[in-house]
Amino acid sequence: MAKLLKGKEVAAAVNADSKERAAALKEKGIIPTLAILRVGEKGDDISYEKGAMKRCANIGVAVKNVILPQDTDQETFYQTIDDLNHDPSVHGILMFRPLPKHLNNEKARNAIAPEKDIDGCSDGSLAGVFTGNGRGYAPCTAEAAVAILDHYGIEVSGKNAVIIGRSLVVGRPLAMMLMERNATVTICHTRTRDIPEMTRRADIVVSCMGRIEALNAEYFSRGQTIIDVGITWNEAKQKVSGDVLFEEAEPLADAITPVPGGVGAVTTSLLVRHVVDAAEKTLTD
Amino acid sequence: MAKLLKGKEVAAAVNADSKERAAALKEKGIIPTLAILRVGEKGDDISYEKGAMKRCANIGVAVKNVILPQDTDQETFYQTIDDLNHDPSVHGILMFRPLPKHLNNEKARNAIAPEKDIDGCSDGSLAGVFTGNGRGYAPCTAEAAVAILDHYGIEVSGKNAVIIGRSLVVGRPLAMMLMERNATVTICHTRTRDIPEMTRRADIVVSCMGRIEALNAEYFSRGQTIIDVGITWNEAKQKVSGDVLFEEAEPLADAITPVPGGVGAVTTSLLVRHVVDAAEKTLTD
Repeated sequence: MAKLLKGKEVAAAVNADSKERAAALKEKGIIPTLAILRVGEKGDDISYEKGAMKRCANIGVAVKNVILPQDTDQETFYQTIDDLNHDPSVHGILMFRPLPKHLNNEKARNAIAPEKDIDGCSDGSLAGVFTGNGRGYAPCTAEAAVAILDHYGIEVSGKNAVIIGRSLVVGRPLAMMLMERNATVTICHTRTRDIPEMTRRADIVVSCMGRIEALNAEYFSRGQTIIDVGITWNEAKQKVSGDVLFEEAEPLADAITPVPGGVGAVTTSLLVRHVVDAAEKTLTD
Repeated sequence: MAKLLKGKEVAAAVNADSKERAAALKEKGIIPTLAILRVGEKGDDISYEKGAMKRCANIGVAVKNVILPQDTDQETFYQTIDDLNHDPSVHGILMFRPLPKHLNNEKARNAIAPEKDIDGCSDGSLAGVFTGNGRGYAPCTAEAAVAILDHYGIEVSGKNAVIIGRSLVVGRPLAMMLMERNATVTICHTRTRDIPEMTRRADIVVSCMGRIEALNAEYFSRGQTIIDVGITWNEAKQKVSGDVLFEEAEPLADAITPVPGGVGAVTTSLLVRHVVDAAEKTLTD
């Protein structure tokens, strides 16, 4: 039977570490603080916000909620970001996107000070992931896949990793992060001629397509590590499903993430860890 | 016999196009201008500078040489960049790197205004290549490999491309650029377990290792397109050599770049084209 790579276990380890570090910061008079900037009242945003706030509370990270009306004008909006950038009590800024169109998503993305960009949305963070120079913060979902491999001691160096999906939030940054760890990385996508041929040859398969249980036994071979980043609501089964057809893949795999309870369970913990990282950096800067 | 992918032919087409566009700009009162910023008197820098100046002259792009002494202080140096950023007669800035250590290479890289960063060295340009958002300029050598494929009408979409080398100036940006064109891309490097196994399965092999004639017949299979980005001085043969052992690879290949006369012959033309691009953009901005 394949080893089950449980996100909860990884998140617990990440949280325990963050909690300890947040407590140490508190002793030095610093309370790591996340500003959450939300424009409007989108349900998805609010529910993510709630989850993040709960996680922050458990770890000892303060939250500063900044909520602007949907029709906020540009001047007020950018002034708000600027204020947060200059507020020494704020260490990280999470800004929900997409923003209302009149606010210019592109400009807003780069308006956040690089050292507070804990969600990795600015050019500086993207360039940091691309170059592997260690600056900026990686997108949390991509980082979650790597954190799972790390936590369970799965060797990446010299291994062939095949990623299905080339999105900016998962596929591309993950490719760079696995390559930084010396994996030989292949990125497959909708235009790939023969995905099963590619994935069958891999040591590590990571899927981030967002297609419910699309990967059956044909895609896998014995002894692989399978990381399923897909999280899609499965209407038929009335539950969240991954990209991988678990019952066909699991018997072949050496190790596999469940969905739910895999990658998705780790992301918020990493977001909060970034806030602690950012707060620690203010000590040394 | 394999089709020879001649860089000279590609460069000629790029140059003809740039020349026409530079002439059109001149009629509108704009002379596309490249500022070349050099600190010190390094031989490599000077010889590249000469080549670029000659290419510019042929195309109708003006050059503004800014040469600072090796011991220039930070203030003068950054003021110089700032002046070039604000000089409306300058459209592109080429800054030789690495700079002397006291000048902070990292800071300098991002000091150049994004719209004048025709050598693609700033975070904004790197993020542009990574995200494929069309902003900024790609590193010229990576772009040269793509320009050759384009010029000779070699289909990239849906093809398996294997790149050997993960440098920031060629391997990584090239991976992103080929993926933007819908290739399925694998990046191999020093830690890859079995490079020949990877390259033999590719439709397109691009090598940018910088190891003289390291790729013999074992690395290739029939019908491939082979792009050799390596340019290394071969002491034994007293000539410039590529990564590919041409006499073994050529009989297998469908199409192959020679060295010299391949990728290396295209790069400066693309640099100059970027200056024309930047000058054109001042009209529409």
